[in-house]
This record gives sequence, structure tokens and C-alpha cells, in this order.
Amino acid sequence: MSKEPDSREKTIAAAAKLLRRQGYVGTALSDILDAGGSPRGSLYFHFPGGKEEIGEAALAFAAEGVRRAIAAAAQTSENAEIFLSRIVAGMTSDLEGSDYADGCPIATTALESSGRSAGLGAAAREAFQKWELEIRRGLELLGLPADRADLAATQFLCQVEGALLLSRTYRDSEPMHRAKRMVALLLRDFGQTR
Amino acid sequence: MSKEPDSREKTIAAAAKLLRRQGYVGTALSDILDAGGSPRGSLYFHFPGGKEEIGEAALAFAAEGVRRAIAAAAQTSENAEIFLSRIVAGMTSDLEGSDYADGCPIATTALESSGRSAGLGAAAREAFQKWELEIRRGLELLGLPADRADLAATQFLCQVEGALLLSRTYRDSEPMHRAKRMVALLLRDFGQTR
Repeated sequence: MSKEPDSREKTIAAAAKLLRRQGYVGTALSDILDAGGSPRGSLYFHFPGGKEEIGEAALAFAAEGVRRAIAAAAQTSENAEIFLSRIVAGMTSDLEGSDYADGCPIATTALESSGRSAGLGAAAREAFQKWELEIRRGLELLGLPADRADLAATQFLCQVEGALLLSRTYRDSEPMHRAKRMVALLLRDFGQTR
Repeated sequence: MSKEPDSREKTIAAAAKLLRRQGYVGTALSDILDAGGSPRGSLYFHFPGGKEEIGEAALAFAAEGVRRAIAAAAQTSENAEIFLSRIVAGMTSDLEGSDYADGCPIATTALESSGRSAGLGAAAREAFQKWELEIRRGLELLGLPADRADLAATQFLCQVEGALLLSRTYRDSEPMHRAKRMVALLLRDFGQTR
């Protein structure tokens, strides 16, 4: 039994990568098994709920990775503009470094499962809400008043999600660069950046 | 042969509706046939390329509908803020009126097919580019200088796409309302709104 946590984690990480690149519906259980290197028997042991349970765990895993990156960016940035620009830069780098395959790890599955799977829908909702909250926290830490940080966090996340969608579809990072230029606009009133 | 154009159009419209709600991968050819009311024989007559050809035609059809709505909003708006706010309001209304099923008609298929189907990828790219161009044209018509209209069009479309994604996932229009509040911010420098 000693290797079981490893096998479970490997399966989740492999599933998260596949969901990011090709979505949930287009990912077969056998793809996840192959990528994670786990035998089918251990899969049903760890995930009695099958593919949907793996999908939920994969979204939670991917969401937590992004949340940590946002929190780290907030801790190491001198002001709100640097903080938000770093998030955009990190995502642009992921996208370009993967030849436009690695966009948002949640979006495709969120859109596919909206209203069709309560479990996947809830996992996607929690992911986006976690990010909104972490961005808001970072903005507050860097001096923004709570209500403005709350509004700006949603607007920033929407801007980045839309830019990831367009950049991936265009196979061109220009929308991400334009999203980065939105940061100054979003923050201009807060006196954070000059 | 006289009814064939009708049958073709019905199939495309039915496919567009299904792709908007559940994406391309999760839509079976038989779902499209059932929804469009066409016999399988006519389907292969009109679409020798099968499901993928229907998907491309459905994206082009949906894209053209949105493009026309954008162009109409530009023609009937007194200024750029009213123009962009109307686009957001129309999309919010579609989303709420469908119990959060009808988000962006292109996004799900764009993300699913990115890098996997050249034809669907190109159709999704053309859709977003058409919208960017039509928003830019509207902003220019309403007095924005060309370079700022170009930048604002991308940023506005990204904002709306991200807000549609979040609102649909949350089953709550708050991100759309926050996107609407971005409009004034996007346009403030242009002296269009006061």
C-alpha cells in the first residue's frame, strides 16, 4: 500500500495536464491511465467515482498550483502593478513555451461541463473563486482598499481569461500583451503605480 | 432539390446552438441530426466533410450573427460607452435568459479544438477576429482614434469573454456587471462618455 499516494497523485497530475490541453470531454480515461502510468485496478481503488472524480481532483490540483503562484507573486512584488503584470507574464510564458497548448487549466472543462456535471461545475467554480480571492488579497496587501481590490480582481481575472482564450485561438500572444496594458488602466486610480 | 438549402441551413443553425451549449467534442453527429431534423443522407450530401465541416459552418454562422449585432449596436448608439454597454447587456441577457447555458458561441469549441483541428481552429480564429474588427470599426465610427480603437477593441472583447466564462461557471451575472463597469474605464481617456 505504500506507493498508493504516489499513484493517486500521478494520476491527478497527468489528468490536470490533459484537461488543460484538450478539455474533459476529449480526454478518455485510457489517456489518463497511459499518461499517469497507473494500472486500471489502482484507478478504481483511488477514484471509485471514475473519470468524473479524477476530473474534479485534477481541477482542484491545477487550481491550487495557480493560487500558490498568485500568492507568491503578491509576496514578492513591490506594488500592485508589478504583481498583476507578473501574473500575466507567467501565463504568457506558459502559453508560448507550450506552443499555445497550455492556456487556462480550468476554462475548457468549465465551459464543457457547465450545467452538465454538478461536480465538475463546482470544482471549476471553486477554482475561479479561489483565484479571484487570492488576487484580491494580493491587491489589498499591496495597498488597495478592500472594495476596489474586490472589483479589480474580477476585472483582471476576466481580462486574463479572455486574453488566454484569444491568444490560444490566434496562436499569437498579442491579446496577452494587450491584457498587460490593461493593468495600468485598472490601477491608475489607486495611486499604486507612479 | 428545392428544399436542400433549407435543410442545410437548419442543420447549421441547430449545430451552432448545440456547440454553444455543450461544445464540439460533446456534440454527437446524431444530436445535430435530431436537432436539425435532417435525414442522415442529406447530411452527407451537404457536408461531405462530416461533423467537422458542420462545426466549421456552425462557428461561421454564429460568428456572423454576433458580428451583425455588434454592427447594429454601433449604428444605433450615440457614443462609445453606450455602444460597448449594449454589447455587454445583450450577452448578459442571452446568458440569464437561458439559465446560464448560452455563453459565447465560439469559446468552448475554440478551446477544445485549439491545435487539434486546423479547420475548426481557423473558424474560431476568424470569428474572434471579425468581432475585434467590428468593435474597432464601431469605436472609430463613434469618434475614437484608430490606434486606441484597435487596442480597446481587443481589451473589451477579452473582458467580455472572460466575464462570460466566469458568469457561466458561477451561474451568476456579477462578472458581466463588473465587465460593464470596465467600459467607462476603457473609454475614460477618449472623452467619449461625459
